[in-house]
Amino acid sequence: MNYQDVINEVYAELLEIKPEGEVANYIPELAKVNPDKFGINLLTIDGNNYGTGDINDKFSIQSIAKVFSLTLAYNIYGSSLWKRVGVEPSGNSFNSLSQLEYENGIPRNPFINSGALVVCDILFDTLENPKIEMLDFIRKISKNKNINYNEEVAKSEKENGFRNAAHINLMKSYGNIKNDINEILDFYFHLCSVEMTCKELSQSFFFLANRGKINDEEILSVSRTKRLNALMQTCGFYDEAGEFSFLVGLPGKSGVGGGIVAVHPGKYSVVTWGPKLNKKGNSFLGMKALELLTTKTELSIF
Amino acid sequence: MNYQDVINEVYAELLEIKPEGEVANYIPELAKVNPDKFGINLLTIDGNNYGTGDINDKFSIQSIAKVFSLTLAYNIYGSSLWKRVGVEPSGNSFNSLSQLEYENGIPRNPFINSGALVVCDILFDTLENPKIEMLDFIRKISKNKNINYNEEVAKSEKENGFRNAAHINLMKSYGNIKNDINEILDFYFHLCSVEMTCKELSQSFFFLANRGKINDEEILSVSRTKRLNALMQTCGFYDEAGEFSFLVGLPGKSGVGGGIVAVHPGKYSVVTWGPKLNKKGNSFLGMKALELLTTKTELSIF
Amino acid sequence: MNYQDVINEVYAELLEIKPEGEVANYIPELAKVNPDKFGINLLTIDGNNYGTGDINDKFSIQSIAKVFSLTLAYNIYGSSLWKRVGVEPSGNSFNSLSQLEYENGIPRNPFINSGALVVCDILFDTLENPKIEMLDFIRKISKNKNINYNEEVAKSEKENGFRNAAHINLMKSYGNIKNDINEILDFYFHLCSVEMTCKELSQSFFFLANRGKINDEEILSVSRTKRLNALMQTCGFYDEAGEFSFLVGLPGKSGVGGGIVAVHPGKYSVVTWGPKLNKKGNSFLGMKALELLTTKTELSIF
Amino acid sequence: MNYQDVINEVYAELLEIKPEGEVANYIPELAKVNPDKFGINLLTIDGNNYGTGDINDKFSIQSIAKVFSLTLAYNIYGSSLWKRVGVEPSGNSFNSLSQLEYENGIPRNPFINSGALVVCDILFDTLENPKIEMLDFIRKISKNKNINYNEEVAKSEKENGFRNAAHINLMKSYGNIKNDINEILDFYFHLCSVEMTCKELSQSFFFLANRGKINDEEILSVSRTKRLNALMQTCGFYDEAGEFSFLVGLPGKSGVGGGIVAVHPGKYSVVTWGPKLNKKGNSFLGMKALELLTTKTELSIF
Repeated sequence: MNYQDVINEVYAELLEIKPEGEVANYIPELAKVNPDKFGINLLTIDGNNYGTGDINDKFSIQSIAKVFSLTLAYNIYGSSLWKRVGVEPSGNSFNSLSQLEYENGIPRNPFINSGALVVCDILFDTLENPKIEMLDFIRKISKNKNINYNEEVAKSEKENGFRNAAHINLMKSYGNIKNDINEILDFYFHLCSVEMTCKELSQSFFFLANRGKINDEEILSVSRTKRLNALMQTCGFYDEAGEFSFLVGLPGKSGVGGGIVAVHPGKYSVVTWGPKLNKKGNSFLGMKALELLTTKTELSIF
Repeated sequence: MNYQDVINEVYAELLEIKPEGEVANYIPELAKVNPDKFGINLLTIDGNNYGTGDINDKFSIQSIAKVFSLTLAYNIYGSSLWKRVGVEPSGNSFNSLSQLEYENGIPRNPFINSGALVVCDILFDTLENPKIEMLDFIRKISKNKNINYNEEVAKSEKENGFRNAAHINLMKSYGNIKNDINEILDFYFHLCSVEMTCKELSQSFFFLANRGKINDEEILSVSRTKRLNALMQTCGFYDEAGEFSFLVGLPGKSGVGGGIVAVHPGKYSVVTWGPKLNKKGNSFLGMKALELLTTKTELSIF
Repeated sequence: MNYQDVINEVYAELLEIKPEGEVANYIPELAKVNPDKFGINLLTIDGNNYGTGDINDKFSIQSIAKVFSLTLAYNIYGSSLWKRVGVEPSGNSFNSLSQLEYENGIPRNPFINSGALVVCDILFDTLENPKIEMLDFIRKISKNKNINYNEEVAKSEKENGFRNAAHINLMKSYGNIKNDINEILDFYFHLCSVEMTCKELSQSFFFLANRGKINDEEILSVSRTKRLNALMQTCGFYDEAGEFSFLVGLPGKSGVGGGIVAVHPGKYSVVTWGPKLNKKGNSFLGMKALELLTTKTELSIF
Repeated sequence: MNYQDVINEVYAELLEIKPEGEVANYIPELAKVNPDKFGINLLTIDGNNYGTGDINDKFSIQSIAKVFSLTLAYNIYGSSLWKRVGVEPSGNSFNSLSQLEYENGIPRNPFINSGALVVCDILFDTLENPKIEMLDFIRKISKNKNINYNEEVAKSEKENGFRNAAHINLMKSYGNIKNDINEILDFYFHLCSVEMTCKELSQSFFFLANRGKINDEEILSVSRTKRLNALMQTCGFYDEAGEFSFLVGLPGKSGVGGGIVAVHPGKYSVVTWGPKLNKKGNSFLGMKALELLTTKTELSIF
């Protein structure tokens, strides 16, 4: 089996399909992306890169960035992190606020918005300059200095972020937010505005496929890497985590910018990008591509 | 690494710990079990069995049996099954009935009680004699004719099964139950009353570790086996699925009788039994034992 | 002001309006009623009756009967009743089952279905023959022996009563139902099947307008009469209790058969019947008629 | 019956009772009030005042002020108000945020916090200087220029108002808040900080007992007065509206400062003040006093 052949095959099959769904449009910056963009890029742990399509276009990685902030916070705080945010899937979203209320302001996991906001609050406690240090970390694990926040996207998110403000205020009322709400929201919206290409994203998730290491440097311990992957498996796809696990069988994380990252521990990291989202907010083409990939290779973690 | 050594080590370490929690006591038959029982049994796909402790005592497998009924229904109905039951984790249980209402009587997954009841209803549609055929199937995959329902347990479950009756009536009001409610409940309570030993259970889950096969016979296709394992990973532990995935990193299923089964695809199936349950209803010792096992072997699917 | 003139005026105005909504159709017996029926009947506490339209046709009083069972139980149990059922409005119905779960099986008030089922269970504890004694009581307060259950309606309700069965099973799991579930449901469905005319219903609610008395006989004490009226005011119209209170300003109770009863303490009881229901399950014409009545008379309790 | 005698009797009986509950303590300004204060004051529509106890002490009227803002908004906007806020009781509070979500940002009624915030937003649309004009209106209906906001209370509320901020942000995300969130919150917290005595409050609610009029000036039309009273009846006491209606049988409104106002249309307005609150947040002594009052006078609207 040659990865490039499989990727080409998957890509060719999906060109035949008219993608369903809509591009995210709650902020203008996301709405104006070309809906027909599509790319797949796979990086093996022995360092070979295989890709096809629009793999060198920058796009808004959005919620995928929550994996970066969590990694940084996990390294600093260790398991005491789990006193302030859980590790359980959240079920459907219709009751996210009442669930938060029922559980006294402790979010179910770090990948739902409330959980990611708590992680940002935790980073604010220790980092000197959270926005700069966060970006430095992302640049380091992607081995690329050319990665930046998109200030316009961050600004636009803030102007439309009333629901996130509702969540963070509710958590503050329970004492689970320690710092200034507006500063945390600013940090969070910047985090979500990071732009990367499929190739860059594959590199940045390499360490999760490689037992926590880049070359010989440990980014995250073996045990924590295993746990972070487990968390992505159960909580990485909003209300489609089960479906992704079921169809694809790999841990992963999606973003409303149309990106999806998946990791096959010990083998590879893979990134797809297709801006049209299905009803649950995940990339239509990305879900299909990764399902085809693990079906064709007959390899998944299961 | 020798599995027997690892198991012995885990067993010895846990003997030092005073198990917390309580034996299930909602029916007298479960309450009277010896709370100090404890066993670990691991069966590799090349057929070697490693075990220690009370691995030859029969115990009530309870919800673990939902994997058997699902396997049978999946084989008969294929993917049309997922029109009547979902594949998503359910979040916490405080709103299980309203979630069912919100989603028009379609349970979130086949391992919560409402989902298992729908699977029973589906089997009722095609099997001539569901109780007998179900038992035959369990005997077949465990290669053991000496497996039976416990009629007293089944009777006792029925007498206390008002919450299950609430769920099935609600689903019936949405048209997602086709057969007579009392007959489905009777079938379901019998299913939960099956008794097996750790060794027998390990054998019965062998096919899920072995790409769906026992010897050369296909019990479930490769693709469906992958999916069933993925489902156990995200939904197998009530409101502790994330925790189990996070700590243990294997797909598995627990029961209130104190049993836990986990599967390492391509390697082994493993069963633990310890009747004291933690607050979320999973075996205290079993959770610890499997966490130690994957930590010591440094092997999990992640 | 002459009541007959006002009623005639209201009736005439509503003849001009094409009633919106649909006849209840969850059971065939209700679906086959003539949707154009309409009547208004008012009985003053000095015994004068004023009516127009179809005031002598029998119709299914449905939930209005919950006032009768509550009156009987209140007389027998007194205020200890309120340990098993609350006196608060229930908010909207989207979470009725989870609310019942959250409040440990104690229904919010005796007019939602779960509350009425608890009242039936309470009557079962003391009455020798609940169905007969209940009917005797209704005949007594309406001064009419010609009032009966409709067995076909009761049977049909039972065959479609899965949601009620869900509620009663959930309450049983919390210990708030003492008797056999099927017997309580049978009693409840009979209660809802009672048939009366507008004139008969007006008579049967006379005591609530008349400080608890019929002639000189006390049906309910002054204080309990006040409380029962207060309960109708806040809880008598499902999720439209506020709207009814707001528009009409009288305590009352509606049923899906299209009937509405309202009471002006110290003045009169009034009944309307129009089978087409608005989206919240209350008679379209009845709501309009009673709003016009209190607007034209410039009299409400407020 | 002489009102002064009844009030004296009620007061004397309650002096025998040791009040249960706690003074509101979520802000220091409320926590430091003398918990033993107690007063009752009744003003009849013919202008006679009857009172006893601490009826000339200023206290924080808190949520009682929502009646004033609603009256002003109702006069300006008329029934179009009800497009942005409902008239139904809200059931219990455990799911207030999810209810708001379920109903697309339209609060159930103007007396829950989210509803009062929408009313403030509406006033912001038309008033030149909302804070000043609001205060002018309160001074006018209480015929008293000596009524003011307490700036310290307002400031303290703001510093602890994260839950209110959660509600208003959620409504903003649904488009049901038009103005700047911080300005609305500032207005709202000032509104809640108004301080009045029992006597002053009785006067300010006089128009609701007197068909909307003070002397010959119409504050609110007869029809709207009826509706506002009906709203207080069903929604004025948080999750104890049914209980208050049941025990007292009058429309009313309570505040966490320990005040309660009730209105007997056509007869009187009555105010009690006792800072210790029961578990549902209403004055322990006030509830008892008003129950005794309507029991002793054998007069309620029912």
